[in-house]
Amino acid sequence: MTQEKRLVLDWTKVHDVFPIEKHLANETSNLISAKKSLVSGKGKSPEFTGWVDYVKEEAQSVLHSIKKQVETICNHSDAVVVVGIGGSLLGTKAVYEALTHSFAIVNQESLHRRPVLFWAGHHIALDELSELLDALDSYSPSLIVVSKSGGTTEPALAFRILKKYLDDRFGTEEASHRIFAITDPNDGTLLKIAKENNYPHFPIPKNIGGRYSIFTPVGLLPLAISGVNVTEFVAGAEQAFYDSTSEKNHSLETNPALCYAGIRNILYANKYKIESLCTWSPKAKGIAEWWKQLFGESDGKENSGLFPASANFTTDLHSLGQYFQDGERHLFATHLKVADEYSLAKGSLKRKIKIPNCSLNDGFDFLTGQELSHVQNEAQQGTFLAHSDGKVPTLIWELPEMNAWWLGYWMYINMFACGVGGYARGINPFDQPGVEDYKNNMFALMGKPGHADKAAQIRSRLSSGNRLRSLGHTSK
Amino acid sequence: MTQEKRLVLDWTKVHDVFPIEKHLANETSNLISAKKSLVSGKGKSPEFTGWVDYVKEEAQSVLHSIKKQVETICNHSDAVVVVGIGGSLLGTKAVYEALTHSFAIVNQESLHRRPVLFWAGHHIALDELSELLDALDSYSPSLIVVSKSGGTTEPALAFRILKKYLDDRFGTEEASHRIFAITDPNDGTLLKIAKENNYPHFPIPKNIGGRYSIFTPVGLLPLAISGVNVTEFVAGAEQAFYDSTSEKNHSLETNPALCYAGIRNILYANKYKIESLCTWSPKAKGIAEWWKQLFGESDGKENSGLFPASANFTTDLHSLGQYFQDGERHLFATHLKVADEYSLAKGSLKRKIKIPNCSLNDGFDFLTGQELSHVQNEAQQGTFLAHSDGKVPTLIWELPEMNAWWLGYWMYINMFACGVGGYARGINPFDQPGVEDYKNNMFALMGKPGHADKAAQIRSRLSSGNRLRSLGHTSK
Repeated sequence: MTQEKRLVLDWTKVHDVFPIEKHLANETSNLISAKKSLVSGKGKSPEFTGWVDYVKEEAQSVLHSIKKQVETICNHSDAVVVVGIGGSLLGTKAVYEALTHSFAIVNQESLHRRPVLFWAGHHIALDELSELLDALDSYSPSLIVVSKSGGTTEPALAFRILKKYLDDRFGTEEASHRIFAITDPNDGTLLKIAKENNYPHFPIPKNIGGRYSIFTPVGLLPLAISGVNVTEFVAGAEQAFYDSTSEKNHSLETNPALCYAGIRNILYANKYKIESLCTWSPKAKGIAEWWKQLFGESDGKENSGLFPASANFTTDLHSLGQYFQDGERHLFATHLKVADEYSLAKGSLKRKIKIPNCSLNDGFDFLTGQELSHVQNEAQQGTFLAHSDGKVPTLIWELPEMNAWWLGYWMYINMFACGVGGYARGINPFDQPGVEDYKNNMFALMGKPGHADKAAQIRSRLSSGNRLRSLGHTSK
Repeated sequence: MTQEKRLVLDWTKVHDVFPIEKHLANETSNLISAKKSLVSGKGKSPEFTGWVDYVKEEAQSVLHSIKKQVETICNHSDAVVVVGIGGSLLGTKAVYEALTHSFAIVNQESLHRRPVLFWAGHHIALDELSELLDALDSYSPSLIVVSKSGGTTEPALAFRILKKYLDDRFGTEEASHRIFAITDPNDGTLLKIAKENNYPHFPIPKNIGGRYSIFTPVGLLPLAISGVNVTEFVAGAEQAFYDSTSEKNHSLETNPALCYAGIRNILYANKYKIESLCTWSPKAKGIAEWWKQLFGESDGKENSGLFPASANFTTDLHSLGQYFQDGERHLFATHLKVADEYSLAKGSLKRKIKIPNCSLNDGFDFLTGQELSHVQNEAQQGTFLAHSDGKVPTLIWELPEMNAWWLGYWMYINMFACGVGGYARGINPFDQPGVEDYKNNMFALMGKPGHADKAAQIRSRLSSGNRLRSLGHTSK
């Protein structure tokens, strides 16, 4: 490519549906002041803004400190189970799925020379965990347990179950060499366990919350093991840090994080209540899951906030497409488009695909010889136009290539936009008080010591009153 | 189990948040009349209501007619690529993921004695399709191409590419024995191709649209190949047909399809604009994708309709949980809970899991010896309570077991509720005019013969006017 490579946030098709320009002009000073609060640590919950400049130096020293462990793990393991939930898992899964081979587990020798990653501790469903244990029999696995405190139920129980699996299979001594922890550097249950059992452990800084932790050991250790170029990943984020935080860069035209934060807030204030992140490859679905936590957990406060949804196109044009076109007009779409789809070649992709000649008389001869990426591009242009004609404000991120550097760049930009947008809207983008509510109920119902009063109260609520039900088929 | 098994739709926790009871009483006669229109073929688009009684007899004869092909395919193939998009794929994928082993492709001999299914033609992304071609080298694959007309771009192009792969690998003659078609029985491009090339082919009835087609050969052929008990699957749907359509069963208390349709419409009319289907195992994610197409494509009409979203718990309690608890109050949750999680044992599940003893001092000793399903159940109760306390109307489907019979039963109930609810709301739940808009733009941009005028018009629109952009990092 001799073309310039550049991250672009194109809001032409927001403007076509809604007079965003004048609103943005009015909002600029508010956004700049939110940015200043974030960078200077003077906004809400400054004790959780450590991620802002972490990518500048600390992430570099993490890259250095994990090197030896990565080698050790790759030497004795062909699979690593990452045990975690929420921010302990979603960023890692997003990058792993986007940048490594989708079918590595089919035939790992030829498709994937590094350990494959599996996921656990992100649910308590019997069926999938049981099936994972079956699958592990075919591997020589290690565990990375990721939890800031160690007190979260899902990963704690999965760790117990997987540790027993390793103990039974390898004996306690060898098993203990296959367990690694990523946790608070100073206190908490998991740190204590790691110290007592001599598990190597890596820090999640106190001042970084889960959904902002992808550039810490949380993401870097497992991604390095899987063969993702984490040095490039951090370098992209570092560049995004400079571009987003620079005191010289207050213009929305050259600071996409500010511009994105502004457009989201303005559309929300004007009755667009749902934002759908639309990705364009099955491999990018995990990116949308990471994005939904980042924005949903940050924005959903005080009975307000954009509802974060996702769609994977063109797949979902044949599912949600009708709704986008003709449903209630309360949503806007943010697309993540990759300019050069073949860029993944530097990773796992082996071939371009041209539409082959065929003797089928299928009505598509006009595409014979065209590259598949060309068709994808025309589908994208056609979709952007159709949706904006249908009055859906359509915002487009154009990523030059899908690789570690640009993905790191884009993910940081989103984190920064999330922080700035939250401050600009007057909510706290760094806490998550509502997540505790189901946990407290669950602890009480499970009989956790110290929750007896709450348990009695809940049980009485659950048993009182009529149950209102509609009853279908019965069998004995 | 000596307990009674019964499908339950529990709306106690809708009532706790919103006075649904009196609205339901007012709505009942409208629902009954919508039901009568649907059953008698007197509502909108009656030419697409063939699915209503298809499960009674026609599906039985399909079960008979596919038997021989299923045997043939299982004899020469250990993988089948289902080529399709939207309704040609989503139901099959949902049932396959829910009822067969999640990690079959790791080690198919021990985990899965039947061919594994892969998916293609549901996108035009270079990266995933290229990686699928890599993966197929490890298998002896067949193709099932599913398309009513054969004129849909995504599956047509994937078919070209995969056919060339088979031709190159096996020679044209053997390749042609590995290709099967599911298409319109009377006309269309794919039927013509199948006849000319002697591909065995199976009918998608003219009077059944894609999103209502899971009980036709579209679902039954690939599912039978993968080892799902399709006889039970159809039997469950047939029972649901009788329970839903019976003239004697007009009571919302014993007709969950009517009750569900009513609750959805009432909540939508009262500013609950988003419905999230909440499933409780990673294996159930595909069910939510099927459900989103069914309701999104049916409801999203005339700038109205509930936005269909999904969440997978407990995973997403650590992602969307904060939004559910404290975000804007415009959503309600419909949960799909499985009463007996171990029921999958009859399928692929090998073990129950109890929380093992451990010496870790992790603070969870109070759960030692408990079954994992017990913890899941307490998490569910805790979540239902927390969300309804947070003013989210919470509707709960309780499926007795996750198996082919009950899944068939529940899927039919949802289809019937979708039809009744659409009629009751006055929209047409059986068309999808908006899906054409992006296709027409795409055809024009791709240079399809006959679209030249539209192409010129679109290109002039794309090149005119200022592009409004925010520009990030540049590199050469």
